[in-house]
Amino acid sequence: MSFLHSQQLNIMTNSTAKALIWTGKSLDVLDQRVLPEITRYDNYNDANGVAEAIKSMRVRGAPAIGIAAAYGVVLSVQAHFSNSTNWKEAVLADIETLAQSRPTAVNLFWALDKMKAVLTQADDTIVDAITKCAVQIHADDLAANKKMGDLGAELLVGAKGVLTHCNTGSLATGGYGTALGVIRSAVAQNPTLNVFAGETRPWLQGARLTVWELSQDGIPATLIADSAAAWLMKSGKIDWIIVGADRIAANGDTANKIGTYSLATLAKQHGVKFMVVAPTSTIDWCLENGDGIEIECREARELLPACYDVPNSLVSAWNPVFDVTPATLIDAIVTEKGVVLNPSQQSTGIASLKND
Amino acid sequence: MSFLHSQQLNIMTNSTAKALIWTGKSLDVLDQRVLPEITRYDNYNDANGVAEAIKSMRVRGAPAIGIAAAYGVVLSVQAHFSNSTNWKEAVLADIETLAQSRPTAVNLFWALDKMKAVLTQADDTIVDAITKCAVQIHADDLAANKKMGDLGAELLVGAKGVLTHCNTGSLATGGYGTALGVIRSAVAQNPTLNVFAGETRPWLQGARLTVWELSQDGIPATLIADSAAAWLMKSGKIDWIIVGADRIAANGDTANKIGTYSLATLAKQHGVKFMVVAPTSTIDWCLENGDGIEIECREARELLPACYDVPNSLVSAWNPVFDVTPATLIDAIVTEKGVVLNPSQQSTGIASLKND
Repeated sequence: MSFLHSQQLNIMTNSTAKALIWTGKSLDVLDQRVLPEITRYDNYNDANGVAEAIKSMRVRGAPAIGIAAAYGVVLSVQAHFSNSTNWKEAVLADIETLAQSRPTAVNLFWALDKMKAVLTQADDTIVDAITKCAVQIHADDLAANKKMGDLGAELLVGAKGVLTHCNTGSLATGGYGTALGVIRSAVAQNPTLNVFAGETRPWLQGARLTVWELSQDGIPATLIADSAAAWLMKSGKIDWIIVGADRIAANGDTANKIGTYSLATLAKQHGVKFMVVAPTSTIDWCLENGDGIEIECREARELLPACYDVPNSLVSAWNPVFDVTPATLIDAIVTEKGVVLNPSQQSTGIASLKND
Repeated sequence: MSFLHSQQLNIMTNSTAKALIWTGKSLDVLDQRVLPEITRYDNYNDANGVAEAIKSMRVRGAPAIGIAAAYGVVLSVQAHFSNSTNWKEAVLADIETLAQSRPTAVNLFWALDKMKAVLTQADDTIVDAITKCAVQIHADDLAANKKMGDLGAELLVGAKGVLTHCNTGSLATGGYGTALGVIRSAVAQNPTLNVFAGETRPWLQGARLTVWELSQDGIPATLIADSAAAWLMKSGKIDWIIVGADRIAANGDTANKIGTYSLATLAKQHGVKFMVVAPTSTIDWCLENGDGIEIECREARELLPACYDVPNSLVSAWNPVFDVTPATLIDAIVTEKGVVLNPSQQSTGIASLKND
């Protein structure tokens, strides 16, 4: 038992599930569309292939998309640099293709801009330089996640149970994860911590990805229907809800997967604390508050049985992808630069995170 | 348009979807397991068949189960009365088989007791008497639902939108429905009322049954993920949440489908009103409050992807079927005997409903 236990802790620290594996000459992409039933990596050796992997949602999660695109640029430079005097044009065309793969993920454009800047360096070292940049983007994301894991876990000392929503783990990032990274670090320190995951309709990221990822690392997890979260809180089994973020306004209002606002409202009613974990790159300093965040509604057919998806159907669906949780409902925002407790009660809000 | 409109209202009043159709010699049971893709009635001409229809969940919903069982007893008497001098023994054995079909539905035993009492009447009119009793149980349930529909709809005057949870309609009852009956009546009076339905994980009664039933009656409905309900409330699109009940304690605390407590808590936070619709037979006067209601947890595999349903899996699920909503979160309890507003603020609570 104790042997198994130390083995489990070792596995936990390293986080076995990987969305992306860079081989030096190609990128292996875990096809997240077929998890948890099938664990299959597809191998890509050119930028078009990587763009297709992003477009088809084999890889999802904003940080993971950015990292995949960076490796796509490396593959492009490897392919074109020695073959053509116009290699830069070919690479820029590939970057454009990668940029078109998903229209809304900010990390994608951020990573491609970083890669594009490297193309101005001296030709004789360009392959090494571009590879180094992609590997660094990947390593920086992983390091930020581990840092957030440590900072968040400090807040969980003494907690009996936590609930998370959606998937914010290795599969969505360069490794370890944001909210799920905090849970990994907390479980490493306190293996008796009970981890609950909401199944996260309609895409079931919790049921398909989060509990799979945790089980790969030897961490027991308990799945619940999203609508059972309030009853779980009332049972006294959880002390914290821990989520990631898609966009954080300057006042701390946080856009995240649909259902997050519900959980935060219910947490306040039940004395359960609410933690948002995200790198500072997720903060949109130009947005005064969450009112300015446009909420994307996706297609009704993600929710509707197929028989209703017909012309003039009386049955429709309202399918917002995100919601906005006001900072007043958030007890802690954890970033790689530090933690802001009770962001709505700080005179400076989360501005302390703005500068290095 | 106005012709279509009056046609729609006519359809609404009659509620086209029927869980059970009594032919006089057999019972047609709508197989709810394959809705909405397939609309298929299975025909049963003996009590054993009806017991199997209940056991296999072709028919579900406590009132509908009770009515089906009553018709099962009619079929038993029809089969045995003229064939045997020991016909009563054979019928009592069939009643026992029907009673074993589902262990927990109170209406099942209530209906079988009523039918059993008829067996003591004179032999020469027994077939007519037993048939009359079953038809009366069915008619009484439908009448109670229409009465509740009228009473509940009075509370909805001026409402723009409502949200319901699970399935409480014709499919779960003798017709028309409880919470869904109120929505039918309200839409008949105000065709612009927006009706939202939560999909109701894990069994998706909302997605599979409620929106199907409404569309059969020409009532447009919008499906949402259960976790989107809070964001819907924040949007200001709904004024009331309307649900049924599985058991109501003497103080008004209400056990209902998992997710109901979450909706009631969120409703209070958003100034949305919360209505429970159930016949007085749902009230358990022996229960002082909701603390005494045992919550059934169903199998993990209702939630878990199949690959986790293996020995020693690190992934489990917590799958409570019901939760309890305290009376303090309920604005109205609507029964066939009348409405109790703000049950927790009345000095007599819901006791006014106790006597005829």
